[in-house]
Amino acid sequence: MSDLLNPKRTVAELKELRALTGDTNGAQRIAFTPMWVKTRAWLRTKLEALPVETHTDAAGNLWTTLRGESEKCLLIGGHMDSVPNGGWLDGCLNVLAGVEILRRINEQYHGKPPVTVRLVDWADEEGARFGKSLFGSSACSGNLDMDEARGLVDKQGIKLPDALKNVGFDFERVKDSAKELQNAAAYIELHIEQGPVLLDLNLPLGAVLGTFGVQRHAVTFHGQAAHSGSTPMNRRKDAFLAAAKMSSEIYKIAERSGNGVCTIGSCTTKPGIVTSVVEECRITLDQRHLDGVALAKMLAEAKAASEHFAQEGNVKVSWERLWQVAPRPFNAELIALCDAAIRETCGQSHRLPSGPLHDAAEVAAAGVPTVMMFVQSLHGISHNKIEDTKEEHLELSVIAFDRLAGKAIDWIKADR
Amino acid sequence: MSDLLNPKRTVAELKELRALTGDTNGAQRIAFTPMWVKTRAWLRTKLEALPVETHTDAAGNLWTTLRGESEKCLLIGGHMDSVPNGGWLDGCLNVLAGVEILRRINEQYHGKPPVTVRLVDWADEEGARFGKSLFGSSACSGNLDMDEARGLVDKQGIKLPDALKNVGFDFERVKDSAKELQNAAAYIELHIEQGPVLLDLNLPLGAVLGTFGVQRHAVTFHGQAAHSGSTPMNRRKDAFLAAAKMSSEIYKIAERSGNGVCTIGSCTTKPGIVTSVVEECRITLDQRHLDGVALAKMLAEAKAASEHFAQEGNVKVSWERLWQVAPRPFNAELIALCDAAIRETCGQSHRLPSGPLHDAAEVAAAGVPTVMMFVQSLHGISHNKIEDTKEEHLELSVIAFDRLAGKAIDWIKADR
Repeated sequence: MSDLLNPKRTVAELKELRALTGDTNGAQRIAFTPMWVKTRAWLRTKLEALPVETHTDAAGNLWTTLRGESEKCLLIGGHMDSVPNGGWLDGCLNVLAGVEILRRINEQYHGKPPVTVRLVDWADEEGARFGKSLFGSSACSGNLDMDEARGLVDKQGIKLPDALKNVGFDFERVKDSAKELQNAAAYIELHIEQGPVLLDLNLPLGAVLGTFGVQRHAVTFHGQAAHSGSTPMNRRKDAFLAAAKMSSEIYKIAERSGNGVCTIGSCTTKPGIVTSVVEECRITLDQRHLDGVALAKMLAEAKAASEHFAQEGNVKVSWERLWQVAPRPFNAELIALCDAAIRETCGQSHRLPSGPLHDAAEVAAAGVPTVMMFVQSLHGISHNKIEDTKEEHLELSVIAFDRLAGKAIDWIKADR
Repeated sequence: MSDLLNPKRTVAELKELRALTGDTNGAQRIAFTPMWVKTRAWLRTKLEALPVETHTDAAGNLWTTLRGESEKCLLIGGHMDSVPNGGWLDGCLNVLAGVEILRRINEQYHGKPPVTVRLVDWADEEGARFGKSLFGSSACSGNLDMDEARGLVDKQGIKLPDALKNVGFDFERVKDSAKELQNAAAYIELHIEQGPVLLDLNLPLGAVLGTFGVQRHAVTFHGQAAHSGSTPMNRRKDAFLAAAKMSSEIYKIAERSGNGVCTIGSCTTKPGIVTSVVEECRITLDQRHLDGVALAKMLAEAKAASEHFAQEGNVKVSWERLWQVAPRPFNAELIALCDAAIRETCGQSHRLPSGPLHDAAEVAAAGVPTVMMFVQSLHGISHNKIEDTKEEHLELSVIAFDRLAGKAIDWIKADR
């Protein structure tokens, strides 16, 4: 690692932030609230000693720029906002590691690195208040659905445009933030894994292949209610039987797909009484894959299976799409650089997809070469006060992420 | 058929009753209500022409006695009460067929049959108001749980003892009705099937082997909530997967059991959201069999399967009994007589168990030789205004049931 980097300082700053913005229930940095404004004021104090320019864009994203010899930019991203009762690392590790890397680069290049380096704190990554995640990054990428967002309302009945106005932003202009990506040549983001893969492999760090595409449906089987005592088994049109067969099947579908995942998260039954065969059974099916073709195949296989089971059980089936998003594969060269940075830091790397979405997916969608680095999560859990990562792993993540930043600068400089 | 029997009169009387006590939503003869009292007053007018004694016992059951040369009794049973919005045949077909048979026997034996014949209209067979079926017959058989029944409350907050008091009965004395069974030598009951078996076989009538024993449980699988995107399939503790495997399994268990039935009637999931693996899944399992040993085996097999699936899926399972009742097999000689009566009437008979409980189960439990006859249900449905049976089948049922009454009288007379 560079002598100029102080990863212990990052851990200390994370603890300082936790004391300042958390309580016994966890982190409370919900976007567009006074605590979030306070968080950013604190962040600015950490940047004061650096020769950087800082401004907030039209969508509320906070940009810190260390100008270099080239206008081409390396972007380092994260988010200071949290869910209510959130963890102490989700999002802010990324930003504070970025601050430490800015310090190292500034020192190493005496205030003038070969390319421009910019740190972005995305606004409202979590979507905790309005139920719409990746607000700032999707405004910047141009993917934000303005009509949908305009109508979003929080639990107090406040509309998103009014909440933005309260903190000084004009909703109708949020897509002006797109200009921030003009000279972006690479985007890198560090994040806690929020899953158990690295923990299982006993590895501190992994290179992220991209974010999963998602197909989310409600699947409803329509049978016939019938008395549980007087209806012979071979006379039944049992909606639960057909739906239940999907459960084992989605494991087979996921396995065949390579690295996809499928989840039945809920099941409801009507009439749902102990003395009747189930007339209607509704399950939700969430399918994710890094590859769009494989994702489409998983969906087609699930549909075919549902129709097969429906026919077998003499019931009907109907599908309703709840949500979908395309996969966002990351840049192959940056993935290789990320892998190399990890191996140089701790000997062994692992490539894995990201199940959850991240701001990086929006930046990738905007055409900027992108990669993420994951650091191991204890318990494999996030969005919870028990979210945690070993301090030695946090320090390793800052070191490896800094190496990745260095490699990315060289890569941009090489004008590939 | 006997020239003295008029099955068309029974159908006419059923229609008369429907007009008197039903509305556009179906039958409204809920026990212990003014409509039920009115129904019984109407029934008494039908009995006026006969040389019978009529009285109500301590549990509210209405007994009509045609004294014979012997004190030994043939009992013919049914119930005039209905569920709210009920069908036009459930329960009252039995009673009105019994009235017609009393007329035939009275005529044939000039008021003095060889054995005493008694018609009983059981009180509150349906349990629609207090959620406790077979009230009158279980009081008479001695099986009524007095402590449980004392606490029963209807939707208006009225206790069962108070409702009984309003119609002239003392709750604490209801088991005095037991004396009505003193000289009972046989009990026969006609009922609509309320299921699809005879309809499927295209047969009008069947001899009932007994009422199913029931084992009713809630089965809860306990897994672990986990993010649907970040949790690899092989890391999941999916409570729904384990529960769903039970669905196909209970069909195999029922098939192995011979004529048993198993039903999963409801399924609930927690947290029950699209983005999480199911942490807890609760299903209800209703198992029924005519044979107590086979029923116990079905339950043991379901428990073993649940533990196997739990282990396979790395989750835990717990069982909670909701209800149980023992099987009530009917009398073999009376079943044979019932079969013969049916064959003589329409050429072909079929033996089948009863899934739903009936008052006959209580009489059988009290040690009285018992049998039931089923007549085909259209749609296989009951407890609904669309409940129906072809008129020609209703007439056949009165004829065959009368033949069974004749055979039962001979059987009692033979002092077996």
